[in-house]
Amino acid sequence: MIGGGGRPALLRRINETTVLARLHQAGPLRLGDLSDRTGLSRQTVAQVVASLAGDGLVEYVEAGREAPRSPGRPARLVRLRPDAAHVVGIDIGPHRTLVVVADLTGRIVAEDRGDSSRLRGPDEMLAHVRARVRAALSRGGVARETVRAVVAGTPGIVEAEHGVVVKAPDMPGWTSIDLADRLRPGFECPVMVENDVNLAVLAERWRGHGRDAGIVVAVQWGGRVGAGILVGDRLLRGAHGAAGEMGFLPGGGGPPVGAAPFGPFERRVGTAAIAELAGDDASPEDPGAATLTAAAAGDPAALEVVDTIAARFAEGLAPLVLILDPDLVVIGGGVVRAGPALLDALGRHLRDRTLVRPALALSALGDRAVALGAARLALDDVERRLFTVRS
Amino acid sequence: MIGGGGRPALLRRINETTVLARLHQAGPLRLGDLSDRTGLSRQTVAQVVASLAGDGLVEYVEAGREAPRSPGRPARLVRLRPDAAHVVGIDIGPHRTLVVVADLTGRIVAEDRGDSSRLRGPDEMLAHVRARVRAALSRGGVARETVRAVVAGTPGIVEAEHGVVVKAPDMPGWTSIDLADRLRPGFECPVMVENDVNLAVLAERWRGHGRDAGIVVAVQWGGRVGAGILVGDRLLRGAHGAAGEMGFLPGGGGPPVGAAPFGPFERRVGTAAIAELAGDDASPEDPGAATLTAAAAGDPAALEVVDTIAARFAEGLAPLVLILDPDLVVIGGGVVRAGPALLDALGRHLRDRTLVRPALALSALGDRAVALGAARLALDDVERRLFTVRS
Repeated sequence: MIGGGGRPALLRRINETTVLARLHQAGPLRLGDLSDRTGLSRQTVAQVVASLAGDGLVEYVEAGREAPRSPGRPARLVRLRPDAAHVVGIDIGPHRTLVVVADLTGRIVAEDRGDSSRLRGPDEMLAHVRARVRAALSRGGVARETVRAVVAGTPGIVEAEHGVVVKAPDMPGWTSIDLADRLRPGFECPVMVENDVNLAVLAERWRGHGRDAGIVVAVQWGGRVGAGILVGDRLLRGAHGAAGEMGFLPGGGGPPVGAAPFGPFERRVGTAAIAELAGDDASPEDPGAATLTAAAAGDPAALEVVDTIAARFAEGLAPLVLILDPDLVVIGGGVVRAGPALLDALGRHLRDRTLVRPALALSALGDRAVALGAARLALDDVERRLFTVRS
Repeated sequence: MIGGGGRPALLRRINETTVLARLHQAGPLRLGDLSDRTGLSRQTVAQVVASLAGDGLVEYVEAGREAPRSPGRPARLVRLRPDAAHVVGIDIGPHRTLVVVADLTGRIVAEDRGDSSRLRGPDEMLAHVRARVRAALSRGGVARETVRAVVAGTPGIVEAEHGVVVKAPDMPGWTSIDLADRLRPGFECPVMVENDVNLAVLAERWRGHGRDAGIVVAVQWGGRVGAGILVGDRLLRGAHGAAGEMGFLPGGGGPPVGAAPFGPFERRVGTAAIAELAGDDASPEDPGAATLTAAAAGDPAALEVVDTIAARFAEGLAPLVLILDPDLVVIGGGVVRAGPALLDALGRHLRDRTLVRPALALSALGDRAVALGAARLALDDVERRLFTVRS
């Protein structure tokens, strides 16, 4: 509610933000309800809505239908235009890339998948990513000017505040890269960078299993192993952006941490270790896939491998559970193909290793978790800027 | 700032809270400054201050002196009366108890230490604690009616929300005890219960090494091992109040977690293990004390024991650092007697086990950390109630 005072331009801006915030919070509203809920006069609300409609931010829809206004029918409700703003979420990985474009309501309006496994070095990777973003925007019919925030997820240690990738052992040359800066050209909006597993846990909170849990851990378990940790609504990034680095937990000997690209724990439990256990070397590009799929189909030998690898995994999950006592651990990544048998084995082997037990779940987001989390983080940023009334 | 409307009693209450909050925030103020900062008229402020002074909550002091008003001298500044409210912080342990009484400014006005090692069961412990609280209040000349919050710290898994101790393996009978309820008689204020290491980390933030760090871990390392974790201003308690249970980290074999009172990690590194390593069995009540003290004095054999135990400890600290990436780890408890040599050895053995390194420090709070943290948590509660203006 705005009393007198303040310069007219500032006041108009505050009134617009107030109206947008109410529509975001409450959904479509009649002009009168909007007046009641904002404390602005009916006349002011009508002016503000007209101005926002002129900027393409709101539109009139018919009550009960919430479809765009048809000519000649009475307009009833004001709503935010879903296409008033878009965000781009990008998953940059050593083998593949995924770009998702979402509208202001969070609906995914376009996706694009790319193969990054044959790219050599950061320049080729960045050119590839820019091309995939262009393709996704074009497929969704989204004008670049409506993109209000971009978030890219990458493996490795990320200084999210500055958008810099400090190091990412399995991405050649992907070291001390100002990724946000390199992605920024062509966008008139904030471009941010975040660690991939941190984005995966945001996606679990948004569209996965973690909607109601207090402390959620999303473990990505594929060729490598890492965890994103959400405490309430807050990512636990760590002092150096290195929280959740489960892959470097001790176990099984080998070179000291930092001297090898893979950590001791991920060497023991990653998909390459699964393939080795199974004596399965048919698919070097997707190791362990055959065994995991066979386990899901009930193959006894494959189930034995899954049990062995789950026992090893419990050795590393136990310290995480003892230290964080999470409500929920969601397992994502390539191992998810083994299905419920993996979860059963994991729960069984964890039992005698911890004082309390978190709920365990398999991610239902597949390989879209990182890109979806990136879109969610971008939406958070857009919502903060569009809908926050500063006093 | 309060416009019109609202019932007079509610309005007066809001004005009083506003004045108290400003004085808490800014320290002693002239009436005119108080009027400026609250947006209340000078006349209203004078009325509110008179009413609060009548209730014993504020007083006039002379500018530049901030001593209580002397008769016949002009009063200048209004301040909160430090003795307007007190809090009681209690550390309940299997061997000793410590009660601290603090005033509204956080100054410790009285302490009382007790020996709990010969008490049998919860009833004797509770009678002992009540007597120690009485002794501390009496020593400080503090009237029980001015106590506005009580917090008790205890080992074990605590449901802080309900004030219930779920289990505490080294406290006989201290299982499923509604400790808050048992301590409440005789107090007209909130009585709360919290895990001891959680209180220790609050004390490090308040008066120890953790004032400016983002993620602070306070490890208590004595006969047992546990950690309190602070992320910003928020305790990481865990889903079941069991976060930071480092003592149950794996290592060295032994019975499964939960089947024995001590965890695998604390069996390997606790003070009993130190005494065993040193071949020192002279002091069963304070094992390892002689060796730790000798190490601090530079004794080569004792330093070798400290190095060995630090190497073992680094095996358990590494998972915590890999998962949380804390800014600072403060080591407290009996081992602190070994001094800087312990810290050096720990840093050396941690080096090849983690990707990034937290700052390490020895606690300077001695055995007062838990009781001080309890007083701090109680003060937080009092401040929230006294100084928060609800709109």
